[in-house]
Amino acid sequence: MLKIAFQGVRGAYSEEAVEKLFNEDVEFVPLHSFDNVFDAVAEGRADRGVIPIENSLTGSIHRNYDLLLKHNLWIMGETKVRIIHNLIVNKGVRFEDIRRIYSHPQGLSQCEKFLSKFPEIENIPAYDTAGSVKMIKGENMLDAAAIASKQSAFYYDMIILEEGIEDIDENYTRFLMLSKSKEISKNANKTSMVFSTENVPGILFKSLSVFALREINLLKIESRPVHGKPWEYFFYLDIEENPNNERGINAINHLKEIATYLKILGCYPKG
Amino acid sequence: MLKIAFQGVRGAYSEEAVEKLFNEDVEFVPLHSFDNVFDAVAEGRADRGVIPIENSLTGSIHRNYDLLLKHNLWIMGETKVRIIHNLIVNKGVRFEDIRRIYSHPQGLSQCEKFLSKFPEIENIPAYDTAGSVKMIKGENMLDAAAIASKQSAFYYDMIILEEGIEDIDENYTRFLMLSKSKEISKNANKTSMVFSTENVPGILFKSLSVFALREINLLKIESRPVHGKPWEYFFYLDIEENPNNERGINAINHLKEIATYLKILGCYPKG
Repeated sequence: MLKIAFQGVRGAYSEEAVEKLFNEDVEFVPLHSFDNVFDAVAEGRADRGVIPIENSLTGSIHRNYDLLLKHNLWIMGETKVRIIHNLIVNKGVRFEDIRRIYSHPQGLSQCEKFLSKFPEIENIPAYDTAGSVKMIKGENMLDAAAIASKQSAFYYDMIILEEGIEDIDENYTRFLMLSKSKEISKNANKTSMVFSTENVPGILFKSLSVFALREINLLKIESRPVHGKPWEYFFYLDIEENPNNERGINAINHLKEIATYLKILGCYPKG
Repeated sequence: MLKIAFQGVRGAYSEEAVEKLFNEDVEFVPLHSFDNVFDAVAEGRADRGVIPIENSLTGSIHRNYDLLLKHNLWIMGETKVRIIHNLIVNKGVRFEDIRRIYSHPQGLSQCEKFLSKFPEIENIPAYDTAGSVKMIKGENMLDAAAIASKQSAFYYDMIILEEGIEDIDENYTRFLMLSKSKEISKNANKTSMVFSTENVPGILFKSLSVFALREINLLKIESRPVHGKPWEYFFYLDIEENPNNERGINAINHLKEIATYLKILGCYPKG
């Protein structure tokens, strides 16, 4: 059985991503931080890591972009999970018993409209969503609720009082599957990379030209600071192309001529 | 006297940015959140707002990019502040008395090397840096220290035990000055804007061409999600050009032909 590392406790949204990415039974390896997930895969304590990289409302998870640069792991796949927030309580707790609601700050802010209807209930930020469920279960709190996934309610044998309490429906998180070895599935059609350049005018335009002039679609661009060089940036690109296609190979060789640093982060089927 | 709103308490790093941006005496208006700063300027309770937009180690402050889009404020100026972290205590407290160190999580993480030398001292994340100084002063804690600015030690009449304890020297934060009215100083040479496009291949390359082909230097690009349209983005650009120059006017008119949405966020002297 493959060991799959992810950040959070059992029932985290990442666990749903794991279930979507693997058709077989796997062993879940819940870890405290994203750093721990990268370390576990790099050191062979897990076969794969699954990390969130981007949410359709709150944007990129920048820490994970930085960790992709720092580590030498390979992106093997991706999947998108619809985030549905639920109000979860211990058995027997009724809505009128609730005095406090716990969740990750993003969980709370994504349910602002729902929560604002109950100003007398205190909202308490917690380390993570499913972790809040685990806590109110562990301490048998009868006056508290958590905002978290359906899976977490199921896993900790809790009750969902209200389903889908998030403000905006279009709430998706994109997750990446990481491995230590550079395996490329035969239906791979997306490539991720990071590069930096000299700081000269027009250089980003020139860099993007290697794809645009070959009609290769750019799916995402993200910039992150270069440490020690204030106001210079690493650029992360996702392109729609298998790098084994001649067009893709030529484009990446062309980018190598322009960039001072280039690393391919992975090649995988578009999720 | 101009009223200047900023996030944090007196002694925050933002206060140093205020001092660099204004040569005259001003009235400081410390507020709880970035949202509060935008609201105060929009509603006329402050004449200007000063917000951090980017740190050279940790990257963009994305919340403030989102607020620039949401509000109709105008960027009038910018400045860069070298972030120097100090270990600050109440009078009479010696290093060997310290059991706990408080700061904003970024303050703690930027002093990791220093802190790792004292594993017996507990590190406690707090809401902000100068706020930690205010707290240990207010509660007269004699076994605690805070990591914060020199200004905060001065303002709360505290002692700096160690100066410059951050791991990396190249730690700068760039701040923006916001106003309600669209004033442009005559030495303005930088323009900030945000735009979105249709989701078609090559569109970002085409958008950047309006500047590159006119030899206008692109200083920064940042992307943020469009709410309700998963995996589509707003692009924020900083260019080195006064939009009153014909070349600049032409470039922006050209971008209007390509973009589905374009807003100029400000025009100001490069800091």
